[in-house]
Amino acid sequence: MLIALLPGDGIGPEVIAEAVRVLDKVVGDKLSYETGAVGGAAYKSAGHPLPPETLDLAKRARAILFGAVGDPDCDRLERHLRPEQAILGLRKELTLFANLRPATLFKELADASALRPEVAQAIDMVIVRELNGDVYFGEKGMRKTASGRREGYDVMSYNEDEVARIARVGFETARARRGKLCSVDKANVLETSQLWRDVVIELAADYPDIELSHMYVDNAAMQLVRNPGQFDVIVTGNLFGDILSDQASMCAGSIGMLPSASLDSNQKGLYEPIHGSAPDIAGQGKANPLATILSAGMMLRYSLGMGAEADRIDMAVAKALENGARTPDLGGKLTTTQMGDAVLAAL
Amino acid sequence: MLIALLPGDGIGPEVIAEAVRVLDKVVGDKLSYETGAVGGAAYKSAGHPLPPETLDLAKRARAILFGAVGDPDCDRLERHLRPEQAILGLRKELTLFANLRPATLFKELADASALRPEVAQAIDMVIVRELNGDVYFGEKGMRKTASGRREGYDVMSYNEDEVARIARVGFETARARRGKLCSVDKANVLETSQLWRDVVIELAADYPDIELSHMYVDNAAMQLVRNPGQFDVIVTGNLFGDILSDQASMCAGSIGMLPSASLDSNQKGLYEPIHGSAPDIAGQGKANPLATILSAGMMLRYSLGMGAEADRIDMAVAKALENGARTPDLGGKLTTTQMGDAVLAAL
Ligand SMILES: CC(C)[C@H](C(=O)O)[C@@H](O)C(=O)O
Ligand SMILES: CC(C)[C@H](C(=O)O)[C@@H](O)C(=O)O
Repeated sequence: MLIALLPGDGIGPEVIAEAVRVLDKVVGDKLSYETGAVGGAAYKSAGHPLPPETLDLAKRARAILFGAVGDPDCDRLERHLRPEQAILGLRKELTLFANLRPATLFKELADASALRPEVAQAIDMVIVRELNGDVYFGEKGMRKTASGRREGYDVMSYNEDEVARIARVGFETARARRGKLCSVDKANVLETSQLWRDVVIELAADYPDIELSHMYVDNAAMQLVRNPGQFDVIVTGNLFGDILSDQASMCAGSIGMLPSASLDSNQKGLYEPIHGSAPDIAGQGKANPLATILSAGMMLRYSLGMGAEADRIDMAVAKALENGARTPDLGGKLTTTQMGDAVLAAL
Repeated sequence: MLIALLPGDGIGPEVIAEAVRVLDKVVGDKLSYETGAVGGAAYKSAGHPLPPETLDLAKRARAILFGAVGDPDCDRLERHLRPEQAILGLRKELTLFANLRPATLFKELADASALRPEVAQAIDMVIVRELNGDVYFGEKGMRKTASGRREGYDVMSYNEDEVARIARVGFETARARRGKLCSVDKANVLETSQLWRDVVIELAADYPDIELSHMYVDNAAMQLVRNPGQFDVIVTGNLFGDILSDQASMCAGSIGMLPSASLDSNQKGLYEPIHGSAPDIAGQGKANPLATILSAGMMLRYSLGMGAEADRIDMAVAKALENGARTPDLGGKLTTTQMGDAVLAAL
């Protein structure tokens, strides 16, 4: 089965390398790999953050293991040439509409959270974020007001099919867990959210076993700090999901620990750590590869039907932590490769 | 000087009553009051959440002390009749474009935060949120897609004058504090944010003494958990400000503690606790009136030029907490009125 490796910028290549070492050990030659250029690296080598060959590779592959994109050198480029367009383009072109971000605190890392240990340890949730719509992909641009002043605008929107598609993923995810779904919107202000809420309520009839609640996004941002243990599954739109899922990850400890999956409706997926390219520490062996290693585990589980192998990866990561393996973000001294070694040793 | 009292829904009337008792004691008959109906209460009594008489009163008054709006009975009304339209209407009609939300943890309440004490105690910031633009006030509605499906949409936008006006408040606020301003946007995805960032950078030339930084909103939501002590002043748009300011308040402890000011360009202002109407505890004497009492203090300081009197209120609140006064949200047993008594006693 073909896996596309898209390391990208900054620490991307370093963390992908460790994930591949772990995959090699766990599934050996069942997988084959092809590497593609994305992000600022691709812009520099090929003139575009998502070159046609890379998109083609991503389409051919069964799954994509993605590092990170983002490069300060590219900040002043026109929007369509910036590194971020690579990930936005892949999500859209491959219809990867469902972003699953589990947030749990490894008990070995209870000290890594800024939350009180008793609050942090209760965290065990999945955030289901829509990835193909919202203000991310609406019409946008710069225009002039009547009095000739510069104005930036972006249209936020969702239609009922888009909402239903992601809401079903939310309901199904809740069904496979503790049966609680919280839909987050801003229906007191936004028409987009009002439609979102209406559609979620309509669908709820198909899921009588799921306990559904609704929360405004401002309140959700508070509740994620006050009592994150109350959440099982959160389903929300692209923009609110971007904010809340990063917040939830940080509540659960280091951002260097958390994986994510972006899925289409046929189990094809892109897997990436939720952290960024961290240009400040790139090339120094300081990056924590665990989020990417865990993302590789999610890939085995969701796209390749290898649940047992995925479990082995999860357990090896927990074991490495138990053995005291810590990169600098976790207060330790291991290099990226040494952390990879620690996981390999635990396998 | 005329003060408009707009108690609103839920616990609004209870907390406003305590703030008025405190104002009476501190400034006596220098102020006169008129009460107006807003929110669900006004809809029920007068058919509109912001009746013309209330708007007129708000325009005549030097400052407005606002309780809270929000009533579950009104959730299914047409949008323009919902309680929230009262506060949105007042902000817009009176051009109250600058929302200042200080977040600090009273040291007596170090235990009330879900964050570790050492992280929470370092919080000392002001969030400056724009209130008159963004996706809140753009064109919005329901429409049909080409294939006849329901679609909700809301246009997000800012023009350069709107950004400059609020950015100046951010720079000035930072100048009066520790000299650090962090502008939060999502310029990697939104054109509205790109304009925001461009204008903030242009203005920075006028404030060479201020240390300016930029942060994406998803990262800001993480940093507010990881290390909120890094922030002095945050300036951001209406939607991101709604989310981040509620999150920051919760980091600083109980939501029952934090005041806010919404100002026009002439020191006229609306003052309100950041908490909502809390219908579940309304009328039971369980609400914490301190956020409203502190809002009354902000009113004296910003709109009435009574800084010394404002200081007295702040000190009385700190003293009451020191003396052990605690409402249920702070883990205590005092009623709303008893907490008011505790502040009066400390004056
Ligand atoms: C890089 C950026 C465009 C992206 C997003 O906003 O979706 C990132 O923050 C994420 O969450 O994957
Ligand atoms: C009630 C609601 C419309 C309002 C807002 O979103 O601005 C509230 O959340 C606030 O922050 O004052």
